[in-house]
Parts: sequence; structure tokens; C-alpha cells
Amino acid sequence: MSSDLFFIGIDGGGTKCRARLEDSEGTLLGEGVSGPANIMRDSELAKTSIQEAISLAVASANQTFANKQKISASQCVVGAGLAGANIAGAKREFEAWAHPFHSLYVLSDLHAACLGAHDGASGAAIIIGTGSSGTLWHNNAFHDVGGHGFPIGDKASGAWLGLKAVKHTLLCLDELAPMDTLALEVCSTLRTNDINHIVSKCATFNTHHYAALVEAMLPMLYTKDETVCAMFEEGAAYIETMAQRLLQQHDLPLAMIGGLSNVYSTYFSDSVKARLVACKATPQQGAIHYAKTACFQLKGEK
Amino acid sequence: MSSDLFFIGIDGGGTKCRARLEDSEGTLLGEGVSGPANIMRDSELAKTSIQEAISLAVASANQTFANKQKISASQCVVGAGLAGANIAGAKREFEAWAHPFHSLYVLSDLHAACLGAHDGASGAAIIIGTGSSGTLWHNNAFHDVGGHGFPIGDKASGAWLGLKAVKHTLLCLDELAPMDTLALEVCSTLRTNDINHIVSKCATFNTHHYAALVEAMLPMLYTKDETVCAMFEEGAAYIETMAQRLLQQHDLPLAMIGGLSNVYSTYFSDSVKARLVACKATPQQGAIHYAKTACFQLKGEK
Repeated sequence: MSSDLFFIGIDGGGTKCRARLEDSEGTLLGEGVSGPANIMRDSELAKTSIQEAISLAVASANQTFANKQKISASQCVVGAGLAGANIAGAKREFEAWAHPFHSLYVLSDLHAACLGAHDGASGAAIIIGTGSSGTLWHNNAFHDVGGHGFPIGDKASGAWLGLKAVKHTLLCLDELAPMDTLALEVCSTLRTNDINHIVSKCATFNTHHYAALVEAMLPMLYTKDETVCAMFEEGAAYIETMAQRLLQQHDLPLAMIGGLSNVYSTYFSDSVKARLVACKATPQQGAIHYAKTACFQLKGEK
Repeated sequence: MSSDLFFIGIDGGGTKCRARLEDSEGTLLGEGVSGPANIMRDSELAKTSIQEAISLAVASANQTFANKQKISASQCVVGAGLAGANIAGAKREFEAWAHPFHSLYVLSDLHAACLGAHDGASGAAIIIGTGSSGTLWHNNAFHDVGGHGFPIGDKASGAWLGLKAVKHTLLCLDELAPMDTLALEVCSTLRTNDINHIVSKCATFNTHHYAALVEAMLPMLYTKDETVCAMFEEGAAYIETMAQRLLQQHDLPLAMIGGLSNVYSTYFSDSVKARLVACKATPQQGAIHYAKTACFQLKGEK
């Protein structure tokens, strides 16, 4: 592979876009962080965020290695792990982008995270944060489970937990269930115990707003609050089923990724716990792995 | 009350707007039906629908009573029971309408239905169709329970049942639960068993789309399908709690309104069943009752 090529890995989600710039030897040259890059939600904003994150990474590299030749966009092979890229239509539309890079390889954020976690080797990954989804990378193919978005999918996720907490709070305020600590915590977090105010606030809520309520729920998990424990147990049962489904056919490791991964990992059965491994690398590195493989493959085919 | 005044009752919901025109003696003169009139969702469309339904009712009356003096909008006292009028801000904004009528009295569709069901007397009403909500009319005041909209509220409703069915179907298609009759029925109704197609379809679903799935679920309730029965039982437990809460303090009757009212009524405890009464009049008549009372009151206060 030509040594005047550089490799960039993108991890783009609903709030942030991270870029990692490496030379062909895998040496880290620079990094950059920008705004949202969910191509399903706003594909133009995603392009802007990706360019910004890459500009920052390249600028940082050019500054650090001031005596060397400057890196230009056209020398960069980009692997972009993007939220929304699991939707075939959104991915296809995004790939039509007349980008300024040497080449662009798009995959989902879940797939990039899985490749990163196992450093390109076979293995399963479950991402459980604002959303939830799982995948298995084996025999050069991904096998996805779950996801599908809020509110129809993403069970056990932060958004799912937060919505459950809001529903519960409305029942308590309507006196259809006894008032309890969770409802008081939700009211305190939303800074109102007026049911109409809560309804108005939630009318504008997206997944991140719901997931933000989990911060108030976590301490109640440790004080063994019955309502909150029951919600996490329901979520944990789903994540356990997902893990078993991903691991059932092959003796492969499982990586847990995302803000709620540590919480849910404690609920796993012994057989799933035995497969847990720490992540070897970041989603950005996973995206670079994907781009490098695709780039080599194309060269090989020529 | 001046006999040259006419009274119009409006029942405006998410899909239809119905108008009923009466003379001051309560004689039905004409009726009209038009499109959506949810003032929270689209207040301008609601105004158009209301005017259209009223025009149709007035035209029908003018045609039927061709020899009498024509009825004009300025002679009409309008009581409008409208979806979304439970939201204070939406109601306030709507009431600023420079309407062409003699006067306009706005209340929620739930309140109009309750007044209609008990012909203006004290009593409770639960509406359970696409949405779910309950109210008690007593001592000249309404006491609401539930509602709050989808997906945070409206438990047990058609939309709630349909969302549950979709979630269940995704679990089955992901092989996280065994494939069953409900999942097959949902796939058949949505005319696809491709999980990505289902996710794309549902991304554009509103409450009516979800509620439309209930039609496929109802026959399974009668064949005692376990999954479907469990969903309805969870919904029924909520409606029972709501009924008990509405009826607990006073010995008043309960009217059940909406497409799922007959289904859920069969689950009621004996104590709630003993309070069930048939609806005496329509929501449109309830809205007229409200407008007449308000109109008399204003005259009395003058």
C-alpha cells in the first residue's frame, strides 16, 4: 500500500463525531471531535460534522509534524462508522456524497465498535447506552440483533428506561399507583410535579432526553428500590437473551460497549459472563480496520 | 333565551369532526361530518374542519326547513368538544379564534363525551379507543385521570396495544422470542416479514397506524392466544384501576366510550360492572349542553 496514504476512522453518533488519523503503519497522528453524525436523522449535518472532525484531526497532525509534508484530504482513506448506516436507504444516499477524500467506506457505528472491540477478529458486541443493539462479526459478515430504534426497539436502553420512568411517574401523579421515590426523583429531575408540565416537556423529548433520566435512576438501583430494580431486571433479561443469541453458534468472545454496559454486565448468567472480554480498540480504530480491509481488497481485485 | 339562537355541538377528534345543529328547544335540525379537528396537532386544520362540519349541518337544516328563515353562523352558539383542548396552551390559543359564530365554548372531547353520556348529570366516563383517558363530572367540575398521549400515557389504548404487537413481532423476527401467531398476524397486516421493512414502515406510524393493528389482534383474544390475552389483561388492569379511582368517592355511574370499550368492560370487577350505564346521548349533545349552560350563566351574570 502506498505510504503517502493516511487512514481516518470515524465514530459518528447522535451527539458526537470522533475522528482518528493514522499513517499506513497504524501510528496515531491526530484526533478531532465535532457534533452529531447520525445519517438517518440529518445526513447533511453528519457530513459537516465528519468534515469538521477530520479537519481538526488533520490540523492537529500537520501542527505536530510541522517539518513533514502537509496531509491533504485527498490522501485520506476514511472509514466511517455512523449511526443510521444500518438503514440501507440512508447508507446508500450518504454514499453518493461527492466527498473530498481519497475514498470513503461507510459502516454502522455498531459494526465499527464491534471491529474495534475485537481488533478485527471474530466476536460479538452489544452496545447499550441511549439505544441498544448487538452484532456478531464472523466469517467476514455481520449478524445484527435488536436495535430498530425507539420506541419500537432498543429495549433495555437508556431511552427505554427513561420512558418507563416517565410513564410510572404519570401513573403516580394520577393516583393510579402509590407515589414513590422514583416518581419524586423524576419530578425533581424535570423540576416540576405538575402533570401537565411533565406532559408538555415530554412532548419535545427525544431519546437523549429520556436517557438523561437514567442518571437519577442508577443510585436507586444500588439502594435496591423495587420499582427501579424491576425495570433494570426486565432490561437485563432482554440483554441476556440477546447475548445468548449472538453467542449460541460459535465459541466467540463478547464485548460490552456503552454507558450502561457495566450495569447490565453484572446481571449476566455465568455462561455469558465467561465470554466477556474487554474492548481491544476503539470504534474509530474499528472503522480504520474496515476501510483498510476494503481498500486492500479493491487493490487486490484490480 | 332568545329563540332566534341555534345550538351546535361539535365532536372533533384526530380523524373526524361531527357537528349537530339544534334549535333552542333541542330539536335536531341538521348534522355534518368533516375531517380532523385536533387543536394540539393542527389548530388551523381544526378550524377548517369545524367550519366545514357546521356549514354542512346548517345547509342541511336550511334545505330541510326551506320555508323558514335561513340560519346564519352568527345565530349559532357553538359548543366544541375537541381533541387537544385538554392542553391548556392549545385551548387558550384556539379560543383566540375570530370565529363567525354567535359564541364559541371550547372543552375537551373527553369532557363533551362525559356530559353527553350522562346527559349533563354527574358521572364518570372512560374513553378507550385509539387513546385512553377518564374523567369524572361532579359538582360542576371535571376530574381527569390518565390520557397524556402516546407513548408516555394512554395505556391500554389501541395505539398502546399496536405498539406492543410491533415490539413483540420484532423480538420474534430477531429470534429473541419464538415466532408465534401474533407476529405472523402483524407481518401479514403490514404485508412484509422483512424486519427492515417493518422498521421503515413504523418510522412513519402515528397512533392511528398502531391502533389499526388491533383489528388483527381481537380475533386472537377470542381464540385465547396467550400473548394477546396477556396484553389485553395488562391493559384491563389499568382501566380497572382508572375506573376505581374515578368511582371511589361518590356513588356515580360510569359510561364506557370508544372502540375498545366493550372489550375492556368484560374484564371489569363486579363492583365496577355494577356502576356501568349506557350512554344517554352523544358527545355532540354533551357539547351543546356545555355551551347552553355557559351561555345561560353568562346571561344570568349580566
